[in-house]
Order: sequence, then C-alpha cells, then structure tokens
Amino acid sequence: MRNFSFVNPTRIIFGRDTIKRLGQEASADGIKRALLVYGQGSVFRNGVYEQVVASLSASGVEFVELPGVQPNPVLSKVHDGIALAREHHAQAIIAVGGGSVFDSSKIIAAGYHHSGDVWDFFSGAARIKQALPVYGVLTISGTGSEMNLNAVLTREEDRTKWGIGSKYLYPRLSIIDPAVQATLPARNTAEGAADMITHILEVYCDGSTGVEVMREYMEGLIRAIIAQTALVLQNADDYQARSQLAWAGTLAFNGSTSPGTKGGDWATHGMEHSLSAFYPVAHGAGLAVLLPVWMRYVCAQDPASFSRLAEKVFAIAEGQDEQRSLAGIESLQACFASWGLPVRLRDLGVTERDLPRMAENAVIKGPLGVLQKLGFEDVLKIYRQAW
Amino acid sequence: MRNFSFVNPTRIIFGRDTIKRLGQEASADGIKRALLVYGQGSVFRNGVYEQVVASLSASGVEFVELPGVQPNPVLSKVHDGIALAREHHAQAIIAVGGGSVFDSSKIIAAGYHHSGDVWDFFSGAARIKQALPVYGVLTISGTGSEMNLNAVLTREEDRTKWGIGSKYLYPRLSIIDPAVQATLPARNTAEGAADMITHILEVYCDGSTGVEVMREYMEGLIRAIIAQTALVLQNADDYQARSQLAWAGTLAFNGSTSPGTKGGDWATHGMEHSLSAFYPVAHGAGLAVLLPVWMRYVCAQDPASFSRLAEKVFAIAEGQDEQRSLAGIESLQACFASWGLPVRLRDLGVTERDLPRMAENAVIKGPLGVLQKLGFEDVLKIYRQAW
Repeated sequence: MRNFSFVNPTRIIFGRDTIKRLGQEASADGIKRALLVYGQGSVFRNGVYEQVVASLSASGVEFVELPGVQPNPVLSKVHDGIALAREHHAQAIIAVGGGSVFDSSKIIAAGYHHSGDVWDFFSGAARIKQALPVYGVLTISGTGSEMNLNAVLTREEDRTKWGIGSKYLYPRLSIIDPAVQATLPARNTAEGAADMITHILEVYCDGSTGVEVMREYMEGLIRAIIAQTALVLQNADDYQARSQLAWAGTLAFNGSTSPGTKGGDWATHGMEHSLSAFYPVAHGAGLAVLLPVWMRYVCAQDPASFSRLAEKVFAIAEGQDEQRSLAGIESLQACFASWGLPVRLRDLGVTERDLPRMAENAVIKGPLGVLQKLGFEDVLKIYRQAW
Repeated sequence: MRNFSFVNPTRIIFGRDTIKRLGQEASADGIKRALLVYGQGSVFRNGVYEQVVASLSASGVEFVELPGVQPNPVLSKVHDGIALAREHHAQAIIAVGGGSVFDSSKIIAAGYHHSGDVWDFFSGAARIKQALPVYGVLTISGTGSEMNLNAVLTREEDRTKWGIGSKYLYPRLSIIDPAVQATLPARNTAEGAADMITHILEVYCDGSTGVEVMREYMEGLIRAIIAQTALVLQNADDYQARSQLAWAGTLAFNGSTSPGTKGGDWATHGMEHSLSAFYPVAHGAGLAVLLPVWMRYVCAQDPASFSRLAEKVFAIAEGQDEQRSLAGIESLQACFASWGLPVRLRDLGVTERDLPRMAENAVIKGPLGVLQKLGFEDVLKIYRQAW
C-alpha cells in the first residue's frame, strides 16, 4: 500500500421517509436562509420537491429556488445560482437531485465567497478556500457526489467539461431515500450503475500493487452492483435491491476504494467528459461504451489485475491471463448491454468526423490516465474503436 | 437494508514515516499543551516514543506524560490522566499505543470537562457532551479504536469491564505507520487479527437481511485479514502485508460494516469483557476462544448466513446449511489455532469454578446479543463449552 490520508466528513442519513429530516438538520446547524437547487422536474413527479419544501417550511428555513439544472451541468447556471444565493444572503445550498444538481450546488457554494469567476477553480487560476455548507437530497444514485469532494462542470462556450476536487466540497449532510428512485426510468438506473462500476474500475485498474484488501472490497462492490441492478431492473419497486444499489453507489466513489492505491486512472472519465461536452449524452451511457474499449486498449499493461477481475467478478477461471482479461471485459460489456445501455458511440448519435475534435478536447490539459498515459493518438484510437 | 445514519470524522494519516507529522498537525489545530498517554514500554523499544517526542518538540507542542496504561485499561489510571490533564491545562490528549491507550485517552478527553466521575458515562448516569480532541499514533492494530467512537474500561474494584460509544470520542486524527508493528511479538499480531475478525463477525452474524453489499464487504475483509495475517506471521517485516492488515483492522470496526444492519450482535464481546475483567487475558485471545463457541451455540438461528460465510470465506461448498455452517466455524477455529492462539478457556488459565461468577458479571446489565438473547444460563453454557 502507498501512504495515504483519508477523511470523509459528510454525514449520511439513509432510508425510507428520511427526507423529512432535512429541515430540522439544517435548522439545528443554524441555517435560516438557503438556495434550493434542483433539476428539470423529476422532483415534482417523484414527490421529493413536496417533501423537501414541507420539511424546510416546518423548520423555518426560508429558501429561494434555482430550478432547471440540466444533466452535464453548465457554468452559466452556476453563475445564476451564485447571483441568487448572494442576493438572498443564503447560508447554505440545498441540492435536491442527482449528480448534476449536487455538482452545481457544490460550485455555487464555493463560488459564493469567490470574487472572480468560478471557472478559475477548474482552470487552476484559483483555489477553493471556503464554501457554504451543502445539504443534499439524492434522487438518483450513480455519481457519488452525495459523499465526495468532486464536482464536474461544462463551460458551454468552448465545450470544456472539467472536474475538480476540494475538501471544502464535501456535502455537510446528504439524505438518501432509495424509495424515491423507484420512479426512475430503467435506463437512468442502468446509467447510474454503469457510473458506479466505472468509478470502481478506474481505481481497480490503475496499476497499484499490494492492495489486496482494496481489491477484495472493490470486487465485492462490483458483484453486488451487478446483482442488485439486475433485481431493480426486473422490479423497480424492489426496495431492498434499490437501497443496496444506492449505498453501493455511494461507496463506489466516496474515497473508500482509494486508500493505498495510486488514486485511480481516470482516463475513461476524461474521455467521457469530452464526449458529453460535445453531445447531450448521459454520463453513465458514455462510460458504458468507453470503459470496455479502454480496458481492452490498456489491459496488457497489467494482465494480473485484469485477469483477477475476470475471475473474481465474472467467474472466468480458465485460460491464461490475457484470454481471461479479454473474456472478463467481454462479460462486462455484455452486462452493460443486458441493462439496455449502448455499446457503440454511434448508438449515442456521435458522428465519426467529430472524433478528432473530441480527442483533442480530451487531452487539452495533457495526456490522460495512470496505468497507461494516453495522448491524442491513443484517445482517438479508443474513440474509433468505440465508434 | 435498515435505515441508518453514517458519519466518521476521524482523519487518518497512513504509511511509512508518517509519525513525524503528528506535531505539525496538532500545532496547526492550535494545540500548544497536551497529555501524552502511552503503555508499558513497547513505545521505547519500537522507537515510536522517540519519534513522537521529536515531532511534538519540533512543533512546539508541550506535553506531560501518563505512562503505564495496561492492557484491559483501568479506571484508576484514567482518573490519574484526568487530574494530570487538568493540572497542566492540556488542550488535547495524545494517544501513543494500541486500543488500551486509545480507549483510556478517549475517556480522559471526555472526563476533562466532566465534574463527576467518568464511570458515570459507563453506568449511564451521565452522557458525554464534549471532549478534548484526541490525536493518536497506533502501534498495534486490532481494536479499531483509532477510527471509532468506542471505548472500553475496567473498574477494578468490582471487575466490571464496560464499553461506551459517543460521537465525541472519535479521534480527531490517527497516524498509522504499519512499519512500527514489525517488532510486535507474533502472538500480539494474531490477537489483533482475531479481534478484527470478531468485529466483523459480530455484525455479519447479527441476523440482518437485505445487506448483500455489506456481506460482500465483510467477507472480503475477513479473507484479506486471514491472508495477510498468514504472511505477517511468516515474515514480521513484510510491510505490504502488515500495512494491509493494519488498514483492514481499521475498516473492521470503524462503522463501515454496519450500515443497513442491526448494528451487530456483540454478545461475544460482552462475554470476553467479563472474562478479561476476571483474568489478565489479552482481548484478542479471549475472543479467539469464545467466538467459535458462540457461533456454534447460535448458528441455528440463521443457517443461511452461517453457511454463506463458510462458503465465501472458507470455500466450503458441500453439504446442507447446517453442516456447512459447522464446517465453517471449524475452519475459523483452526485458523485461530494455526496462528498460535488458544482454543480453550483453560489454556488461558481460567478455572472452572469462576465460570458462574463470570457469567453473572457478563449479564449484569441484561441479556447479551441480538441474533439470540443470551441470559445467565446461556452464557454459562458457552463458557463451559469454551472451557
């Protein structure tokens, strides 16, 4: 194991009928005025908006609203949120939604105190030094943003979609009521699950050694995600499966898989971010396409890990390392396909002539990856193979 | 999964040569005067005392010392520590040692502000409402106290050994340098590993359902602990194995196994506490004896879980649930024995005529356990079977 530091200060309240605790929790922390951030309307259909508003009102927490955060959230909306939060002297940001809403809320929280543009945090021109507290109510599991220090944002004008991490971005509290996810379209549940598995495999496949404890943990998480996703896709109302999937999704990217590792490869995320900056593609769908292709491209760098994965997760015991690795990747791809997720970039509406521009965009900050450094040519090859 | 809340605010710094960071970390938090708590001299032999003192001195953190904390730590020593901390206006407690030192430090930290006797916290007469921050340097892995809210203490006069938990008892920071554990006697390493496995199985065997994600996690942890312990016992200087064992031990009892479960059975710990209140028995050695016997006594309550454990951890695939359960328990007991741990209470010097008094003591607060409630007669039977 490599040396590491670990801390995760986010508090989780998890389970049925827990959203009603939001108001009292925020109020107990002295919050009187907040900015309420949500997405494009699912919170009305699943009843979450109503529960949130009732809870805040009952505890005397006033709020102004920033609706309309879109998947692959954008900088301009964050600007709107910061202006609104300042105008109303918000003491906290309340994120009600999925990863896009959480990520936007985190950046609004950090931007509140920042005199320049929040994009400075992404470009590296400024560092986050403080942030308003974020209180979250999660409505779709996948990104893990409810319990981590990460946020991803797209600047529309030049299609840059970048991620940042800062210890000030951990939500103070996230409430996860898995029951509200019963109304999700199957496709969204599957995309969330693909995102979870990718988070795990980014770390699993980073070439670390001496991390047997973490490998056991990650393999177990993936097996559980695959098993529980199958159950949820059969029966959207299976609360036991839904809740386990939700918690596995939080664990998949809350820092708990990384101790002692190199911290993850993250090339697949980098390539997906460029993809979804160009096309209105759901993050999980993009990952489902790119992850197996990336794995095939790099698996020769660490045959022992990829074949171990094949054995432990997909019960592929036969063959040499290389064959097993490839069979494992095949199984993963088949798993994503069985969930109704796309297999090819063309299935996502991507045109072949955009691939070079996407590849250029993907490596704009430098080569991607840790297990294998991927420059423009590599990324373009992977995009082509995925196309 | 059951509803749950989860948070763990302890920060971990893990790895080689990390002890030197203690002083600067405490100093950065504004600590100028501390009480330094340690045990019976191993910190001199393994060089940790020297590193700690150098680090504190370099950062200008003054300290007074409370040496001599014994395994199965006692109330009188905690009283001494509170008096010393007050006299010197300590702003923090620095725990340098294993579970006994951490537990004592936590209670000293909580007692600092308490006008009554700290035993009030254990008897239920008072609740912890604040505590000084605890900074720790771990020298033996096993109890998990370095990253949890628990503490166990023995009141000598009536041989009561009780545990408490409070959110104020999380260490603020724990430094884990696995390299310093290379000098541990093999027996102590094995006792620590038995403690880790017991922490996991207390939760695994509490009769919870719908916790597949947690079962995967716990099975992986146990497999890893067994594998890494074998390596460490072969070669005490195997840093990779030692570090993985150390981190697994922290995970085994830092709250991460409990989400969605009933929170654990804890009858085995209850029985061991009574045992080690009567005899100067190492906690891990007592658990190694009692855990398999308890498992045999209760396994009929949840045959599916016990047989799953046998399959997933000990690769016992044949037979009906009951046979497999028993074969799994047999394997666990054989594993402890192979580490040189005792199998019978008599091996620990326990006399048969003390068993009734120990059993009485064990249930003094009421029946033990969750999977099966154990009254005096049950506990006595288990002690006798273990004898």
